[in-house]
Amino acid sequence: MVQQRLDRIFSALADPTRREVLVRLGSAPATISDLAEPFAISLTGMKKHIRVLEEAGLVVTEKIGRSRRCRLGTERLDDAMAWISFYQRLWGRRLDGLDAYFTLEKGTEQ
Amino acid sequence: MVQQRLDRIFSALADPTRREVLVRLGSAPATISDLAEPFAISLTGMKKHIRVLEEAGLVVTEKIGRSRRCRLGTERLDDAMAWISFYQRLWGRRLDGLDAYFTLEKGTEQ
Repeated sequence: MVQQRLDRIFSALADPTRREVLVRLGSAPATISDLAEPFAISLTGMKKHIRVLEEAGLVVTEKIGRSRRCRLGTERLDDAMAWISFYQRLWGRRLDGLDAYFTLEKGTEQ
Repeated sequence: MVQQRLDRIFSALADPTRREVLVRLGSAPATISDLAEPFAISLTGMKKHIRVLEEAGLVVTEKIGRSRRCRLGTERLDDAMAWISFYQRLWGRRLDGLDAYFTLEKGTEQ
């Protein structure tokens, strides 16, 4: 279901720590402890964030020895991008509508 | 704060009813009752959704007589789009990294 995927993706992106984790994983995989360290956040807190990102397909984790390694998942945000583009077209059309309205108003004044 | 705006915007988009309301308002302004009608949702429920959209700048409302008219707000989602594009570039680089890795592996095998 595209709708449920969009719900999960936009939800996952609605947090500054989760967005920062994605940026960090964009340069190299990291363990949950590595990820938690720069934030004033507990391991449990970071695990929760990682679970949200994992459910959205944005992160994949694997157990290596006693730690869990995280890397970027397969979700490329194409649907999220498509939705936003669609909205921007709607928004543009709204402005076109307003332009048309003001042109009409101006025409009426003359 | 861009981070707080992104939090609010992605949160607002993380719900199918709210996304549908934006699409609806893209064609014409509507009252809260008009918007609630096609969904199996109470007026109070729709008011909550509208408040979330309003806080994200995606919807503007005005009281007209006894009803409240909603229309698309000024938020064009440029920052959300920019963030997703940035992520997609990161993701692409990750693949470039993997390509380089596999090319290297292949070279070693020969």
